[in-house]
Formats: sequence, C-alpha cells, structure tokens
Amino acid sequence: MAGYDMPDEAMDVAVLEGLRSLRLRKRRITAPKEDEVQLQINCVGICGSDMAYWSKGVAGGFVQLDFSEEGLNQGYCGQMGHECSGTVRSVGAKVTHLQVGDRVALEPGVPCSDCKLCRSGRYNLCPKMRFIGSAVNRVPGALCRKFNHKASYCYKLPPSVSLQEGAMLEPLCVSLQAVTRAKVGVGHHVFVSGAGPIGLMTAMCAKAAGAATVTITDMVDAKLEKAKEIGADYTLKADMPDLLSALESCIGEKFDMSFECCGVPAALNSCIQATMPGGVVCVVANLPQSIPLDLQVAVRHEVDIIGVYRYCNLYPRALALVSSGKINLKPLISKTFQLEEAQAAFEHFASGEPIKVIIQPSAPEQLV
Amino acid sequence: MAGYDMPDEAMDVAVLEGLRSLRLRKRRITAPKEDEVQLQINCVGICGSDMAYWSKGVAGGFVQLDFSEEGLNQGYCGQMGHECSGTVRSVGAKVTHLQVGDRVALEPGVPCSDCKLCRSGRYNLCPKMRFIGSAVNRVPGALCRKFNHKASYCYKLPPSVSLQEGAMLEPLCVSLQAVTRAKVGVGHHVFVSGAGPIGLMTAMCAKAAGAATVTITDMVDAKLEKAKEIGADYTLKADMPDLLSALESCIGEKFDMSFECCGVPAALNSCIQATMPGGVVCVVANLPQSIPLDLQVAVRHEVDIIGVYRYCNLYPRALALVSSGKINLKPLISKTFQLEEAQAAFEHFASGEPIKVIIQPSAPEQLV
Amino acid sequence: MAGYDMPDEAMDVAVLEGLRSLRLRKRRITAPKEDEVQLQINCVGICGSDMAYWSKGVAGGFVQLDFSEEGLNQGYCGQMGHECSGTVRSVGAKVTHLQVGDRVALEPGVPCSDCKLCRSGRYNLCPKMRFIGSAVNRVPGALCRKFNHKASYCYKLPPSVSLQEGAMLEPLCVSLQAVTRAKVGVGHHVFVSGAGPIGLMTAMCAKAAGAATVTITDMVDAKLEKAKEIGADYTLKADMPDLLSALESCIGEKFDMSFECCGVPAALNSCIQATMPGGVVCVVANLPQSIPLDLQVAVRHEVDIIGVYRYCNLYPRALALVSSGKINLKPLISKTFQLEEAQAAFEHFASGEPIKVIIQPSAPEQLV
Amino acid sequence: MAGYDMPDEAMDVAVLEGLRSLRLRKRRITAPKEDEVQLQINCVGICGSDMAYWSKGVAGGFVQLDFSEEGLNQGYCGQMGHECSGTVRSVGAKVTHLQVGDRVALEPGVPCSDCKLCRSGRYNLCPKMRFIGSAVNRVPGALCRKFNHKASYCYKLPPSVSLQEGAMLEPLCVSLQAVTRAKVGVGHHVFVSGAGPIGLMTAMCAKAAGAATVTITDMVDAKLEKAKEIGADYTLKADMPDLLSALESCIGEKFDMSFECCGVPAALNSCIQATMPGGVVCVVANLPQSIPLDLQVAVRHEVDIIGVYRYCNLYPRALALVSSGKINLKPLISKTFQLEEAQAAFEHFASGEPIKVIIQPSAPEQLV
Repeated sequence: MAGYDMPDEAMDVAVLEGLRSLRLRKRRITAPKEDEVQLQINCVGICGSDMAYWSKGVAGGFVQLDFSEEGLNQGYCGQMGHECSGTVRSVGAKVTHLQVGDRVALEPGVPCSDCKLCRSGRYNLCPKMRFIGSAVNRVPGALCRKFNHKASYCYKLPPSVSLQEGAMLEPLCVSLQAVTRAKVGVGHHVFVSGAGPIGLMTAMCAKAAGAATVTITDMVDAKLEKAKEIGADYTLKADMPDLLSALESCIGEKFDMSFECCGVPAALNSCIQATMPGGVVCVVANLPQSIPLDLQVAVRHEVDIIGVYRYCNLYPRALALVSSGKINLKPLISKTFQLEEAQAAFEHFASGEPIKVIIQPSAPEQLV
Repeated sequence: MAGYDMPDEAMDVAVLEGLRSLRLRKRRITAPKEDEVQLQINCVGICGSDMAYWSKGVAGGFVQLDFSEEGLNQGYCGQMGHECSGTVRSVGAKVTHLQVGDRVALEPGVPCSDCKLCRSGRYNLCPKMRFIGSAVNRVPGALCRKFNHKASYCYKLPPSVSLQEGAMLEPLCVSLQAVTRAKVGVGHHVFVSGAGPIGLMTAMCAKAAGAATVTITDMVDAKLEKAKEIGADYTLKADMPDLLSALESCIGEKFDMSFECCGVPAALNSCIQATMPGGVVCVVANLPQSIPLDLQVAVRHEVDIIGVYRYCNLYPRALALVSSGKINLKPLISKTFQLEEAQAAFEHFASGEPIKVIIQPSAPEQLV
Repeated sequence: MAGYDMPDEAMDVAVLEGLRSLRLRKRRITAPKEDEVQLQINCVGICGSDMAYWSKGVAGGFVQLDFSEEGLNQGYCGQMGHECSGTVRSVGAKVTHLQVGDRVALEPGVPCSDCKLCRSGRYNLCPKMRFIGSAVNRVPGALCRKFNHKASYCYKLPPSVSLQEGAMLEPLCVSLQAVTRAKVGVGHHVFVSGAGPIGLMTAMCAKAAGAATVTITDMVDAKLEKAKEIGADYTLKADMPDLLSALESCIGEKFDMSFECCGVPAALNSCIQATMPGGVVCVVANLPQSIPLDLQVAVRHEVDIIGVYRYCNLYPRALALVSSGKINLKPLISKTFQLEEAQAAFEHFASGEPIKVIIQPSAPEQLV
Repeated sequence: MAGYDMPDEAMDVAVLEGLRSLRLRKRRITAPKEDEVQLQINCVGICGSDMAYWSKGVAGGFVQLDFSEEGLNQGYCGQMGHECSGTVRSVGAKVTHLQVGDRVALEPGVPCSDCKLCRSGRYNLCPKMRFIGSAVNRVPGALCRKFNHKASYCYKLPPSVSLQEGAMLEPLCVSLQAVTRAKVGVGHHVFVSGAGPIGLMTAMCAKAAGAATVTITDMVDAKLEKAKEIGADYTLKADMPDLLSALESCIGEKFDMSFECCGVPAALNSCIQATMPGGVVCVVANLPQSIPLDLQVAVRHEVDIIGVYRYCNLYPRALALVSSGKINLKPLISKTFQLEEAQAAFEHFASGEPIKVIIQPSAPEQLV
C-alpha cells in the first residue's frame, strides 16, 4: 500500500501511566511521510533503560516522566520501546528499497544528518538525535501495534534472521560499538566485567572480532553459566579474593582490552588494573555521575579509557554477523509476551534474572 | 643442556647445489650464543620463494645464488628454510623463558631492534633484518637437523598445537599481516583473489577477524573446492565472463576489502574495481616490477592500495588463533617428507598443486 | 529578505557555448528553497577541471559537454564554477545560522547525507553527490551573478578573511584532504611533486600540519621560486639528473610522505622511490586511466598508496587555518577579472603560468 | 678518543644527601661500553620529579630514596638529572653515527628493545626500561660532569640548536607525546589546563601540529602572560566564575582536544566538560592516585580519556621542530646555574615561579 492512501488509524499502545503501571491505550497513527515506512511491530525487547522508566520514571538521570493526564496526552510520554522489528505495512512515496511485507529491523535513533558530528561519521553523538521511546528526545517508542519510521533506518531481514533476532540487533549494536571502538582484533585477549545482556553480547562480539580468549566475571553463578554457554573461555566470580591475580592467571598476562558492563565503579578500577600497558578500557555500562577512579594507574600505562554511547554505522554489520551465523542471539532470549501482557513482561524482567525479554505486539504472519 | 657446554657438531643440511638439485651435506653447528637456543628442527614448510631458489636460483628478483664450490662453502648459500618449528636442545646463558624439551615455532626474521623502524613497531621493515634462509640477507636457513636462533624469536607451543602447525604459523602471519593492516573487522565483506596457500590463509584470517563473508576466485577448480572446505562463502572462476558483475552479485554490493594473492596484474585491477569507495586493496602476492595499473579508479574512490612485507608482532596472535581453535591449519597440509627426501619434496611441490608441503628433519620424539 | 518573497529573476551567467568560447547569457534564478540561501556571487576561481571543459569539453574522462542549443537550454550545461564565495541576498524559511549580508564561502558539493558513505563520514564519496559546475552531476556552476545553495554548506567568513580567500578555500580543502588522509604530523619530512596551485597549497598545508621540512619539485623555475616564497625548504628541478639522490640528500633520508601533484606517471614512481619504508604516497593530481607503476617497490616497503577525491569535513578547518593566519593564500592570487571578462580570464589562465585566476561577478559591496 | 682506551676516572656528581641537601661528591666513571658514548655533560634541566626527590625524597609515589651512607654508596642513589645534553668525549667500539666533539641531546630512557611493548613501537611502556636519574629504575642521573649513555639514544644537534635547547627536548617530547597521541591536527581548537612548563610546551606543540587556536588557563597571571607570549590565542584565569561558559565563548564551541597539565582533579573534570562530543581529553600532569571523576559525562559523549607516560619515537621529530624554527624553546629558559650551584638552582626552582631552570656542568667549549 502506498503511504499517501492511508487514513489515520487508532491502535493499541502500551503506555506507562504511573510507576510500575503499564496499560494499553488507544493512540492514533498517521500515514507515513514520504521518506517513511509504516510497520506492523512484531517484536520489542525490554532494555535496562525501559526498566528504569517503569520503576523510577526516569532513565540515565535525565527527564522525569510526567504521569499527569496532560503529560500522557502529549503522545510520546510513557510510550517506550526501541529494540524492535516489524513488517512493512505501507511505504512513503520516495521509498524505494523496501516494499510491503518486508521484515525489517528498525534502528531507533534518527539523527539530523547535517551537523558536524553527523557529517563526520559519528551520528550517534548528534545533538538533534530523535531516538524513539526516549523521554529526553520526546519521541514515542514502538511498544505498540503500528509505527512510522524513517525508511532508511529500517534494515530488511533475510529469511535466515528471525524477527526476534531483528529486535535484538539494537543491543547487539551497543556491544559492537564497544568492540569496534576498542579495536578488538585477531588474537587479542579480552576481559568483560559483568555477564548481563550487554556483557554477554560484548563477549560474543569480541569473539566474532577475533579475540583468542574472553574472560568474564559476575556475582551470579547462573550468569557465568550462561557466559560459558555462549563461548566465554574463562569465568570468575567477581567477589572472589584476589580477583586481579586470578584474572591474570587465566591467560598468563594482562588483557589487551577490558569492557566494563556492570556499572560498578570498583569493577571499573579492576578493569584498569587488569589491562596491559598500551591497552584499552571501554565503559559500556552506565555509571554514577561522579566516581572515584584510579586514573593515574591508567595514565602511567597509557591505558586509554573510552566510552560508548549507542552506536553508529553498525546495523548492517550486526545483521551480517547474525545472518552469517557468526553470532547466535537465540540463547539470549529468556521469554516472550504479548502486547496485552506488557505489564507482566516488565514484572518478569524486574523479578528474576532473565537476559532478554521480548514483547510481541503482533505475530509475524499478522499483517493487518 | 646449557649452551656453553656444547661442542661444535657436524650435522646434515639440505643444500641447493645447483638448479633443481638439493642434496644433504654436513655442516658444522656451534653452541648457541647467550641469547639463543639450539633447536632440533622438526618441521620446515616449503614456500614459493624456496621454490624460486630451487628452480631459478633467485627469489623476488634479488640475489642470484652462487653454486660454485666457493659459494657453497660460504655456509649460508643454498641453505633454505624459514617456515619451521623445532624442539629446544640447549639454551644460552641468558635465556629464561625456554627450557630443554620445549616445542617452539621459530619466527625467522630477527631485526636489529634499534633502528627507527624497529623502534616504531614495524620491525619487518628493518634494513638490517637477518631473515633465515634468505640469500639476500646471507643467513642460512633451517632445512637441516639443528639450528641456533635468538630465543626471544622462538614461541613455545602449547600441547594443543602440533609442530606441523607451528611451522605453518609463518605463512599464517603473512596473511594476518594483510588482514590486520587492511583493518578487516566484524561484518565486513572480503574478496580474495587467488586460492593458493596464502589466499586460503588470508580467507581464514579474514573470517577469524570477523568478516561476514569471504568471496574467493581462482582459475583451478580444485583450489576453489578447497576454499569452500575451509569456509569461503562464495567461490568464482577467475576467468569467467563479466567477473566484476558476478563478484558484486555475490553479496549485492562491492567489497570492503580485497586481497590480491595470485600475483597477476589484471587480478589486481579487478580488486580495485571490486572494492567499494573508501575501501582497501591489499597486495599480498609478489608482483612483477612494473605493472599497468588502473590507479585513477582507486584514487577517485579513495580506495587505498597497501602492501604487506612479511609481518611484525603477530606470532603470539597467530599462535593464539590456532591454539584457541579459531583457525584450523590442518586441512592445508598436503604431504610430509623426511630430510633425506628434500629433493623429492620440492619435486612434489613443483609438479602438482599441493597447498603446503612439509619436510620433517626429525620426528617430535627425536631429541638427540 | 526571506526567500519565499522572492520572484524569479533573470541574471547573467557565463556559459561555455563551444570549445574555448565563453559568453554571457541570461538565465533565470528561482527563490531559494527553505534550506537554501541565495547568494550574490563575488569570487569564482578557475580550476584545472574548468580549463579542461573550456579547452576540451570534458573533464576527468567523463561526460562530454553538449554544445547544441538543446544541450545549452538544459540549464546546467556549460555553467562552470565551483571555487566560490558570495554574499547572502536572501535566506530560506528554515535557515537560522546565516542572515542577509553575511559573506560566505560555498562548499560546492552537497551529498545525499543518508547513504552508507555519508553516514560513515566520507560524504565526498557519496554516489548521489550534487557537485556544482559539474557536467557529470548535471548541476549548474556558480560562474554567474546569483546562486542558490544549501545553507548548511555555506560558511560565514570572519572579517579577517576576504572573499577572494573564501573562494580559495575550495582548492585548499583538496590539499587539506591529502595532508589529513596521509596523516602528516609534527616533525615529518614531506615531498611534494609539482609546484602548481595544488602542489603549493599541499606544501602550505603540510607545513601547517607540523611538517619540519617540505621539499618540492617542478620543471618550471618560476614555480619553484614561488614555492620558496610560500615556505618550501628545498626546491629541485624535476628533470635534474639523479633526482632521487638529490631528493634524499635534502634531508639526509627518505621522506615520511610524498604527494603527487603534477599528474605525470613517472613522477609518481619517483614518489614511491623517495618515500621511506612504512610511509605514504598520496596521489592528489589526476592521472591517466592506466599507468605503469612500480607497485612492487611500494609493496615491499609497505608504502601505502592513497588517493584523494575532493574533501570532506574540512571547510571549517580550512577556514580556521586562514583566519588564524597559519595559512596565507594571498600570494597565490595571480589576477582577477570581471564576469564580463570570463573568456579573457580563461585565456589568461591557458596562456601563461598563473597560479590562481579569480573571476569576480560582483564586488563585495554590490548587494543587489 | 676510542672508548676502550679510557681509564676509570673520578668526577664531580651532584648528590642528594638528604632532603633539600644537594652536594658535590666524587664518583668514578668507567670507559663507555661498545655501544655507548661518553659525554661531557653540558646542560641539565630541573624537572618537577627532580624537585619531588629533592623536597620529599620520593617522586610519583614510588621508591623512597635511601639517604644512609650505605644507600648513597650504591652509586645511583641521589644522582638525579634526565633532561640533558652533552658533548661526545669518546665513543664505544661499535658506534658509527657519532664522533668526538659532536653535540648531542640524550634521550634518558633506554628500553630493553625486545619485549612485546618495545617490538610494537611503544617502548616508553617497556617494563625493563632503564631511565636515568630514576630511583625506581636504580639508574644514576646525569647531574654530573661526565656520563656514559647508549649511543643510539643520543641525537646529534645541528649547529642551529643550542645545548640548552638540546636539554629541553626531553620535556618537549612529553608534550609532543600528548599532542601526537591525542591526534591534534590542522584546524583543531585546543584547550590546555595549566600554564607551567608542560602546559606551555603542550600549547607550542599543539600550534606546531596545526591547531587553529589554543586556549589556556592558570591561576597565576604571570604564567598566563607567558602563555600569551609563546602564542596562546586565549588565556583565562582558572578560578574565574563560570569558567566553562567563558571557555566556550572563546571559540564559540567546545574544544576538539583538552590537555590537563596542572594535576588538579577539578581541572580534569573541567576538561571533560569543555571537550566536544567525540573529542579527546589527554592527561599530561601527574594526578593523585584516586580521584573523583565525572566519567559518565565523557562516556555519554564518547570523549576519550587518554594519558601519556614519557614518550617514544619523538626525539628526532622534536629536534626537527626546534631546528626548523617551528618551535622556539628559548623563551622558556628562566635561569642557568653551574654544577657547583646545583643546590642553589633547586632552591631557586622551589622558591619562585621559574619555568625552566638549567644547570650547566660544563660550558660548551669545555671538552676535557
């Protein structure tokens, strides 16, 4: 269907109406613009930042959600969801690379494309970024049935890649940004601090990038088990005595790169200590605003400390890794829910220790 | 045994006495110097440059071998062999990281360590390089029973890596140098021109470095079969009509990096045409001195043309790739020979289409 | 004036009506679009590619100009000019960073901003590039009185930078692209082959980037004199006997980087020979389609051969270099002409050995 | 004179015999080894770490000096001095690039040349580094009349470079390491926090590397005056209200790179805040062991935090900058002293606000 033929429609949206209170509401969707596609949303993963909105009304220390009816009527408020995939329902007039029925992964952040940072290839840092499901950007998310998105930020999935995997490309790209910025290469020895979803994906990406070994730490045995399952070479309890010696004895020397994926300042200092002179420590997790840091140790060894903020230019490469089988995301899916069960999905994510919980607003065959 | 206790010894050396004439001679070996080890040589691979000496008396357009008795008496002349592994027989006084009985791979080029290029991390370009088995450097090779080598350029093999694989780290490092210099990374699409030993190893290294796909061309069906076997995603006959279109249709676009591994100028121009704007063409094979090149095509697309000369800083990383199982060299071994059969080994290499022929001057258990 | 208030207007355009025949015609200009500004064109430099159109009807081996009246009526045909500066006459509705009366330099190539190459920071390689004054892109040039251009590709000149200098930022950016891609840094020794406008600007940029010395060659004494004047440390006749030895004796060793700026294949081979192992040869000039190249010499020394195609992300940096006085473009201006004298300007450029000839369609104070 | 002809000699050494107590003693010097030269020491600059030894007996939180007579008899103890130049008195048997009478700058750290870090081009991180005048490395310094040093770490000064400037290459290399690692390039805008010797030299190096502007802060007016004198574009009092806004208003945007050269944690946080997304903060000063850091701000903007530890591969480039006149070190020399006045030199350095104090154990013409 061509976008310009479409009337406005009402559809279901999961809206955060208050702390820990997610309910379906009807909101209207317009026809896609000329450079957009309209998607039937199939899969939406829950991210740590979604969980922060749900439980605290704020993510990353930024904009507090406004749960008044006036706030909720603004249309974007409380509409989360940025790890998603869908099926093309209609295409805008100028869209040529997609057609109705195509299954796509959606890159959630659309930059301005024209500022200094966009032009220089680092569009993830664009100050005018419109990132869906972000209260800061005031852009609604995709935890709903239908969604319009800029077509050039939708990537067609080949038959070998499922819609669930398509939704998981988003967190995978965060890890890929880390591994790419830290320049992991063939034969490197890599340390990952934290075996949550991002730690596990970072381990996978490091292996895909040629790491000879990956050593991973966590406080939770079950997470270390999962790390073993997805290919980690060495796993260690993060609270063991003399962790640094234990780390170094895994591979007989310090690590080329370390990735901090758990958000604990002390773990970051361990990363600095565990990295060899001339190496890199990459901060992937969110940290508290100000932290005590053993920076002088890093300085004296020229260990660079770099962070990652989302990703850029990586969706096609992440998709190629999954479609070629170099990375298998399926072991990371813990449980799936219907859109009507969105509240239950968040409660499940909050209670236990799942890795990736996916909400499925429509089944793949449902194109309506 | 400590090196300083050792008397000089006579031992067997395979000496190239004339074109296509390789015979065992006795040459003397001294005790190792204080920073050397003496190795029982176990495995020596035959390289294309060895074959050039054997069949033409010259390799790479450089120094012609002197087959007079005077020339042969100079001790290095005609003594080839630089892809090798061995077992430590004795250690020099200052050697601490190796001991008698250790199985090692030997990095054949020992640089001066003190010139501008060595200091800046590119010791492969050292003008004072002493590369064993090279008539240019006037350094004898390791196609013999015993050999002294700088200990810090010998790398201990873990139990999981065989001495045959140890010998093959040398050509693997050439490919790794190519893949590393060209910055192959996760999700890249790679083209390899030529499915000989270096082409196959380059394909393996590209996959290990995260390439999503590798496309490889050759004139010989059997080589393309082997390429499939070691993991190439697409194989094409190099002489097919409209090769460029066929290449591009493999992955639906041009390649991020192309590697020229067959030494044919026309193939290099195909690499330039097949590489996407902003990409890299890496020349791994030897080329004729002057070639007609479509350089302007590369210039207009900012496709960088880079070459590799041997390798630097890669033995530990290559070894880690093999020991961790990310790269499996065993399918590349075609046939093995005894030292007494050295002439037959070269004839075998010359006649058919083997990939890697290995001469074994002593079996692993033979430490005498 | 706001752009949407403007009526279409007739204005003077210098049109190439046949080989070596440039005449003023009237063409119409529309109001600027919402993201454009309309400029009073002040200065337009003549480039080698303009000269190629003028004398041969084709530039870079691409599209032959159509001099039929039908061709000329297409509106872009024969309308050259891409090195230019102007004064803002009116602004489109969405333009905020410029206002009427601002003096600006105009970056002539406007990329699509959304393709893989644009997103990754290399917009100069965008396949949908609209480069003004290019017959290939079918976009008219700025050799006229008034011109509409995307506002975000117009850079406001500070009072310290003249409109003539503003027009010369364009070729300066080509040199800056070369120096930036080749990674010239503090203390490097640089060789520039060719002392034409691009060679001179490349020498200036290399010095600005920290080069300790610049050595430059040319066939013409007057050009070498000019090179001395703008700061070259050593100048040599390109046809002297044993040029390579002479080059090396300038600084006592080979060069870190060499820049080929004259378009002669033999000069490119000299660049390769004159560059130290591990160095870079950068091709800035246009070359014939296929050339004989001593590539093997480059390969064996890991001398990378890179080209540049226009520039990206450099206008602000080039402007900062000129406004801060680190680069002085004024000595490169040979002569200026009025728009009515455009034909004479090209004849002047063609006859002698001027460096930079500038046509001035309107004086700075003329804002009409 | 050939080194092997030389008898041992007694000579004057300035020895730190206790806190703030520096006296001349006689120590013996042997003939230079075959790869060494023996220098008549001409100039020795006083560094902040020398001052730390003098006033606290320890530098950088490492090894406390042993002032007992037993400690002092160990020969290296209390013998400071690593910023130095001298004149060759004799050469070891294998030295070919230097001869008696040559004036040289001495690179004080001699690495092992054979470890992983040395081989990969980062010899400043060599764990076996022998850095002269360092109690940690137990290597005596050059604050004495005569000194043996590895010849390949001595760089011949051309006539245009004085011995005082030769001694100052050492701190200049620290700044050059910073500017090189941070990749300052043409047209960048640079912020330097702290206008002490290292801050001033970092500003000079940034300008030499192409920075369009340098903005520098300090608490002391006189230092800001000096910063203006050596070419800083903007100077600001570090304790002014709303420093961050003031910084940004200098150039109208945030900085590409910031250099922390004063060692105050709060200043480092200002550097992070003042740097644009995608930029670099480089830590040049020594910091306390653990500091409170606004790392999350850096992470969210992908501002990399890198440190420098000494320098590598930079003496030739620093020398080229000084000899070509791109950097003028003379304005940084505050006062010179004789070796007999060493104690007074340290007292002068400690009391006032000098930039660079130089002790001259022998005048240039004194070769005895």
